[in-house]
Formats: sequence, structure tokens, C-alpha cells
Amino acid sequence: MAGHNVTVERTIKALLDDKKYSALKDILVTMNGADIAAIFEEIPKDKTPLLFRLLPKKLAAETFVEMSSDLQELLIKRFSDKELRDVINELYVDDAADLIDEMPANVVKRILAHADPQMRREINEILKYPENSAGSIMTTEYISLKPEMTIDEALKRIRATAVDRETIYTCYVIENRRLLGVVTLKDILLVKDDEARISDIMKTNVIAVHTYDDREDIAKLLSKYNFIALPVLDNEDLMVGIITFDDAMDVLEEEATEDIERMAAMLPSEKEYLRSSVFAIFRQRIPWLLLLMVSATFTGLIITKFENALAAQVVLTAFIPMLMDTGGNSGSQASATIIRAISLGDVGFASLPKVIWKEIRVATLSGMTLAAACFVKISLIDKLLLGNSEVTFLVAFVVCAALAVTVLVSKLIGSTLPIFADKLGFDPAVMSSPFITTIVDAISLCVYFGFASALLLH
Amino acid sequence: MAGHNVTVERTIKALLDDKKYSALKDILVTMNGADIAAIFEEIPKDKTPLLFRLLPKKLAAETFVEMSSDLQELLIKRFSDKELRDVINELYVDDAADLIDEMPANVVKRILAHADPQMRREINEILKYPENSAGSIMTTEYISLKPEMTIDEALKRIRATAVDRETIYTCYVIENRRLLGVVTLKDILLVKDDEARISDIMKTNVIAVHTYDDREDIAKLLSKYNFIALPVLDNEDLMVGIITFDDAMDVLEEEATEDIERMAAMLPSEKEYLRSSVFAIFRQRIPWLLLLMVSATFTGLIITKFENALAAQVVLTAFIPMLMDTGGNSGSQASATIIRAISLGDVGFASLPKVIWKEIRVATLSGMTLAAACFVKISLIDKLLLGNSEVTFLVAFVVCAALAVTVLVSKLIGSTLPIFADKLGFDPAVMSSPFITTIVDAISLCVYFGFASALLLH
Repeated sequence: MAGHNVTVERTIKALLDDKKYSALKDILVTMNGADIAAIFEEIPKDKTPLLFRLLPKKLAAETFVEMSSDLQELLIKRFSDKELRDVINELYVDDAADLIDEMPANVVKRILAHADPQMRREINEILKYPENSAGSIMTTEYISLKPEMTIDEALKRIRATAVDRETIYTCYVIENRRLLGVVTLKDILLVKDDEARISDIMKTNVIAVHTYDDREDIAKLLSKYNFIALPVLDNEDLMVGIITFDDAMDVLEEEATEDIERMAAMLPSEKEYLRSSVFAIFRQRIPWLLLLMVSATFTGLIITKFENALAAQVVLTAFIPMLMDTGGNSGSQASATIIRAISLGDVGFASLPKVIWKEIRVATLSGMTLAAACFVKISLIDKLLLGNSEVTFLVAFVVCAALAVTVLVSKLIGSTLPIFADKLGFDPAVMSSPFITTIVDAISLCVYFGFASALLLH
Repeated sequence: MAGHNVTVERTIKALLDDKKYSALKDILVTMNGADIAAIFEEIPKDKTPLLFRLLPKKLAAETFVEMSSDLQELLIKRFSDKELRDVINELYVDDAADLIDEMPANVVKRILAHADPQMRREINEILKYPENSAGSIMTTEYISLKPEMTIDEALKRIRATAVDRETIYTCYVIENRRLLGVVTLKDILLVKDDEARISDIMKTNVIAVHTYDDREDIAKLLSKYNFIALPVLDNEDLMVGIITFDDAMDVLEEEATEDIERMAAMLPSEKEYLRSSVFAIFRQRIPWLLLLMVSATFTGLIITKFENALAAQVVLTAFIPMLMDTGGNSGSQASATIIRAISLGDVGFASLPKVIWKEIRVATLSGMTLAAACFVKISLIDKLLLGNSEVTFLVAFVVCAALAVTVLVSKLIGSTLPIFADKLGFDPAVMSSPFITTIVDAISLCVYFGFASALLLH
């Protein structure tokens, strides 16, 4: 059962200290690769090779793929040639390709030198595809069947080749490297007629992807159809590999993280937070901070332009933060909603008119509610409670009118900019809340001073 | 192949208009439930029952579960009793329970009246668990085996019961409703020895969850271990159901959407954006806008307090937006990073000291860089280019010093508040960027006026 990690970790550390390797091995073989890898991250680095050698071959490979790249590199450097060969050739091809992506050049060379020729060829096949493409996350290890096979022959073939296939539950019917159809193991097992052939039960209307398709789109396809795997075809429509649901899940998680980072005005991170260096986090965050700071010059300019007005009616200054924040928040709400809807495939450029019309109505409702609430707040808190005599009803009116207009403008900007960014081929999430806030700031100040000039300052 | 939706949609609409039902049926049977459901959303509502009746039983059920709840309700109301019975009893139990969750009371009554007694019992079993619990997303349709079965007997049982099981690829070995172990179909097919029994090959160190566990934690477990399904046990550790990877994928997507919405100061949405009513979106957004607007009273108060100082040195006002925005952005970056890390299980309360120490260093680097850049910007743009004589070097120093301190404080607040919220049992994402911005606004103004009072105003 899950959730006993801390106790198990303590036991393992104690046994390791006491050099009780046989007892240690008995515990490890009952565990999962992912859990063992988590424990490896916690024990002293110099003891990791020792502990790793206690694992049986298959479990060793399962544990290895779940480790951080730092630890993988350390282990590879300590491995004997034989140990390296055992681990590498036990990996699934897509995991081996991921590993090579992460390792420095000298380690890569050693890995490739010790991989089986077949393994090396397949790794190189995957490595030639660009990052984020279907080719880069596919595996070449799938079950292929022939259309003329009987159910019995198919089952025999599945049993004979299952060991090193990433999934055996969806099988691909292939002739001359062309994909004719798919058949699930469930379909095969459900056939009653012993004479039936694979071509009789296969599904020919196959959903397939291409090697250069975006990995995020493919993850969404897998999620939409609830498939265990999708076949990958090359430019000539020949079958080259499959992408399985577990890789799709990882992609969806990574893409959601990237969206969240972009929305908060950061560059995407390379590693998880606690494993990232201070400098890496700094580099991820500083570009947008600098850019947004410099672009705040505009708001400064607007204020400088109305300096005299502000000097005459200093009370106006007190409402600037509230106006700017409410505008910024309204805009962020709209942009976050639309960015996520674009990510999930619910909103596209064709939806622009619908989005604008919806946001106009939401913004009018929100703006009026906020303006009314603001008027009550100013009357009760600023005038009555705090007795600020400078806050006249005319000042309150100017603030509330500016607020309503600001909310409308910011909702429209926040909802439409991500759609335009997407249309132009950018990630819509670069239209981050802070970016939209900066634009909305300038506009809200102009609206505010516009109303103030017209009504208060003569 | 994917991506021909628009053409297919047009063809289907044309055939429907021309009443060519037989041709229509030929196309539909080659398609996927998810794709057919998408087309249903686009055709006139009064034609949907007609089109639906063309689908064979199983495909009809597959299509039905993928539809929007509005359309499901419309169809159910138009169904004859027999049609309703056919669809309901063809659904997987977890899908049927989801359907009932969405429908109004009178429709629910009709659905339950037409479900098989067995189906009704299982639906009610699932419905008794709270929203967001494992019990609410599990299905009771899984393959159970007995430990003493031979491989052949097990395969026979799988073949006999596979039709209405949600997955047959992970089987559960059960005795007296107790889960003894799991065995995958792959394990079963790989056995060479005909005499082997299930108890010989099953894995006894099972990872299981409980009915009241949070569905998000379970989705993460499935994603971590790359399992196709996880067993669900009740309070007495008796096996009651399974949760499959496709439901976990949906949960992960929904939870990421919820996090993004909370981070942008919204309540979680019920439906996708384009299907939500204007009033629903308004209700989702207005509470935080109102709260944050009222809490901006504090920033107003701080400015009012320093009104005289500002009247004497109006130039100080021009830098307020830049200071507040940079502080807000720095805080949002930190909070977004930490909220996501908590969601992914990378950061917890125990990581607090590590997080604080990391953020202090990142903030010092960022603060110094921003202060230096700001000093250069003020000197070049405000003094030289714009020739603003009020901007003295002392003013520039006050602005830059306040900036550096603000960045430090906002990174610390942004990174620690989500961790405290999580510790107290709240969703860390309620520590949204706008909320943190409001706090940081007040602090940055205090710091700014503090420096200004000490150095500029005598």
C-alpha cells in the first residue's frame, strides 16, 4: 500500500549502515522503481552504486529511469562496462533516448558504445526528431501483427515478443511497413471463432499521428480518445513507432507547468524547483521583470504629464493603486481563462467574436457591480469613517466611472491578446498577466486622468 | 487519420439534410464516439435524436458519454423507455454515475428506474462517495481472479467476462473480497509453465487507494507509476472498485485548470468557457475582484498618510506604478512556482527552510539587477532624454533602494504564503497572484515612503 515511504526509507538507511545487504535486497525486490528511485535521492551519493548493485536487472532499469539526471550521470560514471551494458539494454528505447538527451557528450559516447547495435539504431532514430515532436517521445518497441494471421498465431506472436514491448495491449497490423489497422488484445481475446483472422477483426479507421506533430497535440488526442497508445507514421506514412498514455500524461503535466510559468511572466523551467540552481531560477525570472520594469516608464510618463493636476488634487493619487490593481486583476482573469481554453482546444481564432461578445457582457456586469461597490465603500469608509473631506461626491464619481471603463477595457484586452498571439504562432501564455497588467495600467491611468480633467480640474 | 473533422462534419450535415440515412450510418460506424459527439454539438438540436438512432448500441453509448450534459438531457427526454434502457445499461458504471451527477432530479429518477437492478446498485455505490473522492470516480467493473486458478482458467475467465469490464489488462486476485495481489494480462501471457497458478505469478506488494482518498492524489499516483489502473479499497480494506488511467488524465487536466483559475483570482469553473453563461462567468470572477478592490483601501490609506510629502515632491508619484508592478510581478513569479511545485508534490511544509533560503538568494540577485537597471534607466531616460529636473540622484537612489527591498519582500511572501495555506488545509492556489500583489503593494509603498521620508523630506 502507498504512503509508508518514510518508514521504508529509514529502514533502508539503517540496513545500509549496518551492511545488511541480503535483508536490504529482500525489501527492495518488493518495491516499485519509482519508490526506490526516490530513496536513492535521499541516501549519501557515495553509497548509491553499492545499493544499485543489489537490484535485479529489470528492477535496476526501472529504478534508473525514475532517477534525477544528476544521479543517473553519477551512476553511469561508476558503472563497469558490463553494468552499463546491462542497464542500457534493459531500458525501453524511448527512455534510453531521453537519458541521452540529458547526459553530457562524453557520457553519451560511452552509453552508445555499450548499447546493442539494434538498440543504438533505434535510439538514433528517435534522437533525430526535434524536441517536442512526436518522434522524440515515441518508442519503436510495439507489437506488429500480419493481417492473414489467425487469432491463435497472433496470440503466439504476442506471447513470444511481449517481454521487451512497451505495451502489448494495442497491436498494429502491418504489411510492407504500412499500417493497415489496429486490434486490441481485448478484441483478440473476445473472438469466439477459432478460424477468424486478424484482418477480420482489426479496426481500419485508424487514428495515427506523424513524427513531426507537436507532442502536446498528441497527448491531447490520447486523452480525448482514452487510448493506451497511438501509432506514429513517418513522412511516407510508414509506421515507425508508438506513443503510450504514460508519456502523454507526463507531457500534459509539463505543458500545464509551462503555461503556468509563462502566465506568471517566467521562462519555462528545465528542472523541478528544489533541484534548480539559484542562478537558473534567476535567469528564468529576470528577463520579464526587467522588460516590465522598463515598460512601466509609460505609466510614469502619464503621471508626470498630469503632475500639476495631481499636485492640485492630491486625493486623486490615493485611488491610483486600487484602479490599477482592479484593472490588472480583471485583465488577468480574462487572459488566464482564455489561455487555458486555447490550451485545451476549446477556443481558437474562429471564436474571437463569441469571446468578445461574452466578455463585453461579463465586463459590463462586473464593471457596474464594482463601481457601485466602490461608491458605497468610498462613501462609508473614506468619507464617513475616516472623515476625509477631500473626497467629494464628484471625486467618488470620477473614480467609479474610471473603474467601470477600466474593467471593460482590461477584460477585452485580456481576452483577445492571447487569441491574437496564438494566431500569430506564439504561445498564447506569453500574453501573461503581468504583461497585460502593464498595458492595462497605462490605459486605466489615461481614463482616470481623462475623467478627472473633464470633471474636476478647470 | 485525425484532422478531417470539418469535411466529415459537412458530409454528415449534407447527408442528414438529404435524408440519406443508410449512407450516414456507413460513415458513423467507422468513427469514434468522441468525434461523433463533437458533430452532435454542431447539428440542429431537433435532428439529434434522429441521428442518434442510427448508431449501433455500443457506439451509441460511447458517443453519449462524450456529449455535453445539455445534449444528454435533451436526448434522454426524447428517448423511448426502451432506448433509454439500451443506452444506460450499455454505459460503464462510472460514466453512468457521472451522468446522474449532471442531470436534474426528474431525469435522474427516470434513468434509475430503467437501469438494471445490478447497474442501479453499482451506481448508488459510487454516488454515495463525496465529490473529488476516489469512490466518486471509480468503476466497479474490473476483472477478478482467484489465487488457485491456473493460467488457462484465468484466461478463460478473462475471455468470458471481458465484454463489460473497463480494463482487462490489470486483473485483481481476490479471496473473500480481500485483495491478495495483482497480475497483468502481460504477466499471464508470458508464463511458459502450463501448471503455474495465479498465486505463483501475482504481485503481492500492491499499491492501492481508499474510497475517501483525494482523486487528485490518486491521479498523481497513476501518473507516477505509469499504471493502467489502481485498486480502490473501502474502510475495511475490502476491494470495491478500480480507477483507470483515462479518468486520471481527466482529473489532472481539471485540476490544472482549477489551479490556473485560482491563481488568477477566480472561483473554479463548472463548464468550459464557451458553454458557460455570462452570469456563471460573472459569479466566478466577481468575488475576488470585490474583495481585492476593498482591500486596496490600505494602499489608499498609506498614500493619504504621506499626502503632504507627495504634494511637496510630486515626482515621487510617477514611480509608484513601476514599484508596485515590479513588486507584484516578483511575488507572482514566486507564488506561481511554489503553487505548481506543491501541486506536483515536489514541495511541502518540510521544504520551507530550503524555499526561503533559495528565494532569499534569487531575490537578492534579482533585486540588485533590477535596482541597477532602474538606476541606469532613470539616469538615461528620465534625466537625460526627458530632461526631468525634479529627478535628482537622491530620488533615483530612493526609488532603486525601495525597489530592491520590495523585490526581496515580495519573493519571500510569494513563496511562503502558498506553503502556509497548504499546511492549514487550504488550496495553495488561493494565494493567487492578485492576492499577493495586494499585500506587496502595501508593503512596497511603506518601504518607498520610508526611504523617501528618511532621505528626501525634512
